[in-house]
Amino acid sequence: MRAITTIPPGGGVKLSQVNEGSSSGIRIKTHLTGICGTDKEIAAGKLKFARPEVGQSLILGHEAVGIVSETSDDAAFKEGDVVVPIVRRPGKCRMCQLGRQDYCEDGDFVEAGIRGKNGFMRDEFVENAEYLVKVDNAGILDLAVLTEPLKNVMKMKEIFQFLRLRIPWYCSDSTLSCKNMYVFGTGTEGLLISTVFKELGMNVVEVNRHPLGENVLNYLENNKIEYLDTSAEKLDRRVKEFSMDAAVDAVGAMDVFKEITDNINSNGIALMFGTSGQLPSSNYEVLESIVDKNVAIVGSVDGAKIHYSEAINFLEAHGKGMHMEKLITGKYEPEDLKVFTEREKGEIKKVIAWS
Amino acid sequence: MRAITTIPPGGGVKLSQVNEGSSSGIRIKTHLTGICGTDKEIAAGKLKFARPEVGQSLILGHEAVGIVSETSDDAAFKEGDVVVPIVRRPGKCRMCQLGRQDYCEDGDFVEAGIRGKNGFMRDEFVENAEYLVKVDNAGILDLAVLTEPLKNVMKMKEIFQFLRLRIPWYCSDSTLSCKNMYVFGTGTEGLLISTVFKELGMNVVEVNRHPLGENVLNYLENNKIEYLDTSAEKLDRRVKEFSMDAAVDAVGAMDVFKEITDNINSNGIALMFGTSGQLPSSNYEVLESIVDKNVAIVGSVDGAKIHYSEAINFLEAHGKGMHMEKLITGKYEPEDLKVFTEREKGEIKKVIAWS
Amino acid sequence: MRAITTIPPGGGVKLSQVNEGSSSGIRIKTHLTGICGTDKEIAAGKLKFARPEVGQSLILGHEAVGIVSETSDDAAFKEGDVVVPIVRRPGKCRMCQLGRQDYCEDGDFVEAGIRGKNGFMRDEFVENAEYLVKVDNAGILDLAVLTEPLKNVMKMKEIFQFLRLRIPWYCSDSTLSCKNMYVFGTGTEGLLISTVFKELGMNVVEVNRHPLGENVLNYLENNKIEYLDTSAEKLDRRVKEFSMDAAVDAVGAMDVFKEITDNINSNGIALMFGTSGQLPSSNYEVLESIVDKNVAIVGSVDGAKIHYSEAINFLEAHGKGMHMEKLITGKYEPEDLKVFTEREKGEIKKVIAWS
Amino acid sequence: MRAITTIPPGGGVKLSQVNEGSSSGIRIKTHLTGICGTDKEIAAGKLKFARPEVGQSLILGHEAVGIVSETSDDAAFKEGDVVVPIVRRPGKCRMCQLGRQDYCEDGDFVEAGIRGKNGFMRDEFVENAEYLVKVDNAGILDLAVLTEPLKNVMKMKEIFQFLRLRIPWYCSDSTLSCKNMYVFGTGTEGLLISTVFKELGMNVVEVNRHPLGENVLNYLENNKIEYLDTSAEKLDRRVKEFSMDAAVDAVGAMDVFKEITDNINSNGIALMFGTSGQLPSSNYEVLESIVDKNVAIVGSVDGAKIHYSEAINFLEAHGKGMHMEKLITGKYEPEDLKVFTEREKGEIKKVIAWS
Repeated sequence: MRAITTIPPGGGVKLSQVNEGSSSGIRIKTHLTGICGTDKEIAAGKLKFARPEVGQSLILGHEAVGIVSETSDDAAFKEGDVVVPIVRRPGKCRMCQLGRQDYCEDGDFVEAGIRGKNGFMRDEFVENAEYLVKVDNAGILDLAVLTEPLKNVMKMKEIFQFLRLRIPWYCSDSTLSCKNMYVFGTGTEGLLISTVFKELGMNVVEVNRHPLGENVLNYLENNKIEYLDTSAEKLDRRVKEFSMDAAVDAVGAMDVFKEITDNINSNGIALMFGTSGQLPSSNYEVLESIVDKNVAIVGSVDGAKIHYSEAINFLEAHGKGMHMEKLITGKYEPEDLKVFTEREKGEIKKVIAWS
Repeated sequence: MRAITTIPPGGGVKLSQVNEGSSSGIRIKTHLTGICGTDKEIAAGKLKFARPEVGQSLILGHEAVGIVSETSDDAAFKEGDVVVPIVRRPGKCRMCQLGRQDYCEDGDFVEAGIRGKNGFMRDEFVENAEYLVKVDNAGILDLAVLTEPLKNVMKMKEIFQFLRLRIPWYCSDSTLSCKNMYVFGTGTEGLLISTVFKELGMNVVEVNRHPLGENVLNYLENNKIEYLDTSAEKLDRRVKEFSMDAAVDAVGAMDVFKEITDNINSNGIALMFGTSGQLPSSNYEVLESIVDKNVAIVGSVDGAKIHYSEAINFLEAHGKGMHMEKLITGKYEPEDLKVFTEREKGEIKKVIAWS
Repeated sequence: MRAITTIPPGGGVKLSQVNEGSSSGIRIKTHLTGICGTDKEIAAGKLKFARPEVGQSLILGHEAVGIVSETSDDAAFKEGDVVVPIVRRPGKCRMCQLGRQDYCEDGDFVEAGIRGKNGFMRDEFVENAEYLVKVDNAGILDLAVLTEPLKNVMKMKEIFQFLRLRIPWYCSDSTLSCKNMYVFGTGTEGLLISTVFKELGMNVVEVNRHPLGENVLNYLENNKIEYLDTSAEKLDRRVKEFSMDAAVDAVGAMDVFKEITDNINSNGIALMFGTSGQLPSSNYEVLESIVDKNVAIVGSVDGAKIHYSEAINFLEAHGKGMHMEKLITGKYEPEDLKVFTEREKGEIKKVIAWS
Repeated sequence: MRAITTIPPGGGVKLSQVNEGSSSGIRIKTHLTGICGTDKEIAAGKLKFARPEVGQSLILGHEAVGIVSETSDDAAFKEGDVVVPIVRRPGKCRMCQLGRQDYCEDGDFVEAGIRGKNGFMRDEFVENAEYLVKVDNAGILDLAVLTEPLKNVMKMKEIFQFLRLRIPWYCSDSTLSCKNMYVFGTGTEGLLISTVFKELGMNVVEVNRHPLGENVLNYLENNKIEYLDTSAEKLDRRVKEFSMDAAVDAVGAMDVFKEITDNINSNGIALMFGTSGQLPSSNYEVLESIVDKNVAIVGSVDGAKIHYSEAINFLEAHGKGMHMEKLITGKYEPEDLKVFTEREKGEIKKVIAWS
């Protein structure tokens, strides 16, 4: 069968013919796989921890949705079921054993398509039931390719709701309608974050340092998410009008970190998600802001199976109403390997169609 | 009466004669006042937000213990009671109204001896009962001057215990005995932090970039607190042996922040307390560490009345057993104004005796 | 205009002609009002705390959805907006001032249609914007009459999620799919509770002491909610197969309380909602079970504005997919006053249509 | 060596000569063992779940303090160390594996002196290091016999502090000084509960249905704990003056449960500890109170190793200041077996001296 492979950590991508060994489990025909920054970084040889499962070659792909084609008497799934596979597989640490490998204590895990385990950019794959999450509503077959990036946001929401318990962190009418959430970064992850916190009832401001493309602008307007192009309007000016009560960094640059700590409100909640900052860092002093304002800054990586389930529920419940299909801006053939290197005008999420 | 005054924000200190107006309330004879970095900064004209209560002159002093000399029929206190006054006075925001002005939302508060309210470096002062905390055990009269710096640590402990609820953050025998807490900074605040987390059952490592003085070394050894002089042994070497599960920064320098985020364990808890870093910051990238390790970083400033009470309880319960009287290394007359500018060999906490 | 009134606490219902005074605010044409057990109890003179707003007569009705017909320059709402009014209005206590009158500390509140404030069973009413919640999706105009009973469930969910933080209360794959929730009571509230916890990913068992009617059975089957008729199968037998990890009592009888404490699992979570038990209580000993199993039992009454918003979101997201329109089993004219006394075969929620 | 044994579940006590097999581990000379209601119930044949470790005979005793007499190269303890052994030993469930066997999910544990494991009423015993907690301060050698009953209170405090996060559950000055805690039951456990919550800063009222003995009265007065004899003053009268904000039941009778639910304040916290109520229950309806007041009722049994540590810290810190030695009202020889059946005038805690 076809598979998109790379030689980590050196990089490169090619469409190969590979044999699926006779592993036992549930056989899944890949429907769509999404491409994200991590895939591009592996392909470009920039992700040092990328490593093969065996031999030298790694099958790429961690965002996927597929259809069960064969089950081995496993009651949990039947032929035709739409499923999303889980990326990170637990190791032996306590948090992994509790089912929370997203909080792995020792780094002893593998991640499909990234490190130590082949990914899903291939015609089909075989999987254990425990690493599959079912999509009940076949009407979101395509949209379900967003489950994997969206599960990260569900974990962020879990942390956010936890941190709110520190003090009565809500408006005087009990809702979050007076609270402004600034989301830095307008890639797929940034937009998904904005979508989820908007649905939670907050006033959300998407922040970017360049003018936003039409696709993104339309998406934000359809969902009544505010936006700010800091090349046109300064952040602190907007903050003066709409206080920054919370923030998510989906960029990963130190100057965004500083913009957040400088501008965030007292008792603010900042969630850190971005790690791929390509901007040079400068001399920053952020501690006084963090301390004097009692700011909580919490890093969030990955998500657990519960978050995949919540992501699927979110897509079923709000996918249509919040126009999330507009986030998928391009569908490509497996042969179109330039998706790993070229950036289309207006692209948000590009996917590869396997069936 | 005598009072130590400054002209903020310009600075300077002198021993003045001032009149206590005929305010109604509880009259307290000052017993001891402590001197901390903030006092020195105000005296040196380095604290921009320092400001007088009225006129141009501000009476210094926010760490104090005194004895009630006159009450106005207030049942809560009687003549002879030992009391500690509260520094920060609430404004009108929601958190202030809840009694948690340490989480003030809008900065609309005053702080005795710092901004907008005269402090306690004077022979006596008049106070409302609600801003006084009683010391039941007169045996800790002197030690009670540590209440104010210690209340900051009690708030940190509150945050620490809250953050531990995120995941099962304890050893496999339910205690904290396998958890290492690194405390950066060996001033009074750093030592109090180490003392409290040691008492909580953690293995505590005090970190400094210079050899530690004998007073500090003795204090740490008496309390079985580990120490690390990073000019003699590298931090990451110690961390390899004793993982950094949690950390408190009581320095306030960005390179300490980076040392923490670089070295802290997955799911680590970092409490930020220091703001007065005088070291130049460099080019730092800390985000990948924060995100990939799910690190929680929370700033903590000030403390509420409950933390004053807890601090007094701590001094009563552990002051003697943990040799905390050794933290007070010098007792001075109000006339000895050089305490604000000179640093004695081996000094930890210097206090001024008023009675 | 027409209004359904009663003379509390004596009871009785009649359709009256009343004048709406010239109060200022937002004018709303009532679309539907729901009838619940509380309305019937007031009508039957059984609710002692029922009391009029002024005079002797009280307009009934606290479950409502309406359409804005007139606004007074209030930007928050415009003509044609679909809105749900809030029942409980805050008093002066701290929790009320925080917007959480559902946690009122002193009972000093009024509730529309129940105590101290006229309700919504009338052709139109005038309301302040802060007590209205907007329904964005006009497609759920009818369904929105379920907002008020559903908001109670949203508060229960808030408590449930909070209590889960006590220990790692989830399955070894991080989800709730292995956890069984038993819901006692098959009235509207019981069914809404089952619906919400099913959507949360739990295995839900509806428990009743009589055979269930066809409407209810169909609703449960459509939503894959299990059911148990304890006149046909004993509870403890079912529990042996599917442990009772959590429970909600929507009945209010002491024998249900005992059934829960007897059968619930260690570390179980029991939410108490029912108060209208009409069964005689007997001699019960429940304490050993509660203690030895570390059971958490928490009462939950009412909900805050945030829960109205969440309820509307739930209806928009899941109303159709979970067949919630089937919960409305009868639509009546205001003249049909027998809805307060007669019980139709198969009835779940009956509503009165005003427009 | 000597040992006090019983034949469970039938009961009886005798002083036997037993052989300590050659088990490896740390050898401890028993110093004191306490006698509690559970011991008496086992002796009286009333505790159905009591069972031997092997054969038919069980060595009694779960409250103990001893001195290490022999170690097997175990660095954690050395000869002469004062230690308290842990009662409940973990099974294989998830909570046991996390070190929280006090939250055991499946009941698969043993408890020394109670079920499946010999206890400490013998001249010496051999133990694994992981089930011993060290008492650093030899000055509380006798007092440390209270560690085991006190650890139950430390777990209750953990639950109490957790439940307080539900809403801002503190006074308007941030402390607990305005909050009244009613403790039902004046046995050792009840008095320890009162002591701990008093130290936490609450106003504590001890409640009993009979006049209190002089020993108890003196203890309460010394610690400024209020008391109420409900044979002389009705509970609801006291509650009218001092609202019942929280309560602990250390009796275990249903009428106490009803007194709590009837009288507790809105948003009240009730901790259930007692299980040995001997009073007949009557017809009770408690649900309306629980629901309408949002009451949280949580059972608490046992405690984890962390709570033993906290108990020892409490005894070291407050044992002397709070006169806790007065709780030990009688010291007996192992031969005095009537301690299991007779009740001395004024007795609180009786202990057996082994060395």
